[in-house]
Parts: sequence; structure tokens; C-alpha cells
Amino acid sequence: MSWNATVLTLFPGMFPGPLGTSLAGRAMERGLWSLEARDIRDAATDRHRTVDDTPFGGGAGMVLRPDVVDAAIAAAVPEGDARPLVFLTPRGVPLRQSLVRQLAAGPGVVALCGRYEGVDQRVVEARGMIEVSIGDYVLSGGELAAMVLLDACVRLIPGVMGAAESAEEESFSSNLLEYPHYTRPAEWRGLRVPEVLLSGHHAEVARWRRERSEAVTRERRPDLLTEQGRPGSTAGAPLHPAASPA
Amino acid sequence: MSWNATVLTLFPGMFPGPLGTSLAGRAMERGLWSLEARDIRDAATDRHRTVDDTPFGGGAGMVLRPDVVDAAIAAAVPEGDARPLVFLTPRGVPLRQSLVRQLAAGPGVVALCGRYEGVDQRVVEARGMIEVSIGDYVLSGGELAAMVLLDACVRLIPGVMGAAESAEEESFSSNLLEYPHYTRPAEWRGLRVPEVLLSGHHAEVARWRRERSEAVTRERRPDLLTEQGRPGSTAGAPLHPAASPA
Repeated sequence: MSWNATVLTLFPGMFPGPLGTSLAGRAMERGLWSLEARDIRDAATDRHRTVDDTPFGGGAGMVLRPDVVDAAIAAAVPEGDARPLVFLTPRGVPLRQSLVRQLAAGPGVVALCGRYEGVDQRVVEARGMIEVSIGDYVLSGGELAAMVLLDACVRLIPGVMGAAESAEEESFSSNLLEYPHYTRPAEWRGLRVPEVLLSGHHAEVARWRRERSEAVTRERRPDLLTEQGRPGSTAGAPLHPAASPA
Repeated sequence: MSWNATVLTLFPGMFPGPLGTSLAGRAMERGLWSLEARDIRDAATDRHRTVDDTPFGGGAGMVLRPDVVDAAIAAAVPEGDARPLVFLTPRGVPLRQSLVRQLAAGPGVVALCGRYEGVDQRVVEARGMIEVSIGDYVLSGGELAAMVLLDACVRLIPGVMGAAESAEEESFSSNLLEYPHYTRPAEWRGLRVPEVLLSGHHAEVARWRRERSEAVTRERRPDLLTEQGRPGSTAGAPLHPAASPA
């Protein structure tokens, strides 16, 4: 029973790309997860293999056709497939570690990568897609966003990380940015590591780190300290399987 | 005068990866930008090519040594290089389109990718690095984050996008999520596109789209509607060049 990812894209050659090396790549070689990239264009039916058309109502860019996207999903997702279908789009709810955990704990994910202007909204809704954004910036397409989503999920699959790395995961749940790190040499270019870290006093080290975490969070991410104000919390929201059009 | 990116990583083989195809890849072939990936390990000085060590104060994971990272930067960045140095880390300020625009308008960027637990904070501060996070999730390393940053920047380099695509960029500045898109067929599986989009009334189409944008923003990103509450706005902050240790 491995965790299975299917990516629907106009650029299947981009995959596995960075996901084929390092932590995710080794986990793939060990059979802990699989990745299939499918070309949306294979679902086109005319001889020009058209996948998009101009937007109704006017405007720049092209929109992926609902029938083509739906056929691409039908071809990629077997009947009864329980994996949720994620559409990577700047319109989506922000990706958070809570959603990553939820997806990593399931059977896998089907990821649809947008290009051009977007995807016809009828198929997004008919297929019950989860619209997800990885951040407030514009990318040339959804492929890098899908890789980010998959990398974040894969490292949480049981067996992928070692025990030490897994322990670190806990600390992210605290809603604080991490404290700063220091290693050898103890003095570098006249700059010494903070003395408390050399003291051997575990309680004082823990207190210092907590204070540094709180300080950097206040400075850079005050929103994390008032968690109720944060957008896009999807923890506990049901994940619709990709195989059943709503 | 092209836009030049240098990436410092323990996995130089990941690059250019997805950035070598599609929009960014074509722009690279046309000489509009360049990408050099350098192995941090080349800056190690012992025969085991050690780059990291255990954290002072204890804890899981390994920390990249300040002397090794500094030497890697010195080797990659010529004297007088005006490019800012960005360290991709979950501790960073959130990446926003405003910072992307600022970086894209400059000479390029030097991106440091973290792995293991992190990077010794002394070299981060001595080199005046901009600590940037692409989102509130944990990746296996900074490489995908660097690719996201570069993809977002490259598409804004003059000449990379066509006129039509460039026009769309304007709409992102409105602090609203995008309205939904529709294309042919006008009826698909009994689902018709919203009638107003077929009406030919430009003013009504514009009003409908604005309403849909506001509705989806209220639902998914109420934080965008109260912009003063948003974290990590770095617009207008000075970008320190990588070549001059602070």
C-alpha cells in the first residue's frame, strides 16, 4: 500500500524533476510513493489536439475546456478511486501544513495543474475539486505548485523521514517560527554563538529558544500569534474523492 | 543585460529542472535570463567535504556551517555583485508578488537553499540575507522554494510574457482573487455558462466578475480585504547586495 500521486498537466516532462532526487526520490525508489504525470492533451479529441479556448465574456488568455479536463480526469482516475482532486490555482485556499497532513494520511492525491488563464469553473465544481494556492504570487503554471504540494506530503509518509527528522515535525505545530540555529565553529570571524547554547543548561536553552521564536514570529508573522485571523484553515474539512463527480 | 540567478544548493542536479521548459525555459534559450546552480559542498575544506555539524544547544538535525556557506557565497558572487541574497526558509517573511516585482526589476538574485535543520544564523546576518518563506508548510529543502521564486520573477522580466499575458498581471494587483473562467462549450453536461457572459454587455460582465471576485475573496481570503493586517509586506524595503557582508 503506497501513497499514489497522479498529476494532470500540459508539461508531463517536468515530472518527476526535483521529486526524483533527494528525500522524495529515495522514497519513490523504495516504493513508499508513486508518481504518474499525464498529459491533459491526450484527452483532446480534435486533430489539432485543442485543449483550450477563449473566455466567455472576453479578456486575455485562454481557458482549459471543461470536456477536455473532465475526460483527462476520467482517463487518469479509476472508478472508485478515493484520492482527493486538488486544483492548483491562485484562487484557492492557502496551502497549510494542516492540509498537507490530511492529504499525506490518505491514499494519495490527483493534482490538476492550470496553465493559460485558468480552467472552466464548471468542471472544477462538478468534480468537487479542492482549489489550493501555495502562496500570494503568480507562477507560470501549476506544475511547480504541484511539486511543492507533493514534496510536502511525501516527507510525512510513514518511513520517509528518519526518527530524528520526524521529531522536528512536532515543533512546527506550535504556530511559532523557528529559533535561530548555530553550529561549529563556536567563534567565526569574531562572532560567537550565544553563550547560553554552550552552557549545558537545558532549561535555559529551551527558554532562550522559545524567546527567540516568539520574537521572530512577532516581527515577521504577527498573524500567527492571532491564529483565529488566519485564512484558509481546512483542517477537518471533508476531502471529496476525485472519482465521483459531485 | 540579462537577469542572472545563482542558486547555492546541495543538489545542483535539480536545476534547471522545471525551469528549463515552458515559459522560463524558452526565456532562458532566448538569453533573457541565466541560471547557475552551484554545489555548496564545493566550498567544504576537509577531505570528507563536510558542510554541516550538530546544533549548539542540542536538538535534532544538522546545521550548515557558517564558514562553508560564506565560502560558497564568496566563490559564487563576484566582488561588487549587486544582486540581493535570498535565503529560502520557513522562518522567512512570506513571499508576495510585491517582493517578486522588486526582485524581477533588479539585476537578478542569489538564492541559498537550506537543507537539514537550517543554516548558522551568523552567516545569514553577516551576509545581510533576505529570509523568505514561500508558504506555511514544510518542504524537504529550499530547492523547490527557489524554483518557485525564480519562476515568479522570470515571467515578469521584460520580453518574457506576451502583451496579452502582461495585461493580466495588472488584475492581480487588485487584492482580490480572480473571478471564475468559462469557455466553450456554452452548455456542457447540462451546465450552462452564466448568461451574463454571453450577453455582450461589457459593463455587466465587468460588474458580474467584480462581484464574483469579491465573493470568493470574502469566502477564502478575508485577510486580503483588510490589507493592513497582512504580514511580511516588504515593498519598498532596501535589498542588500549579496557581495557586501553587512
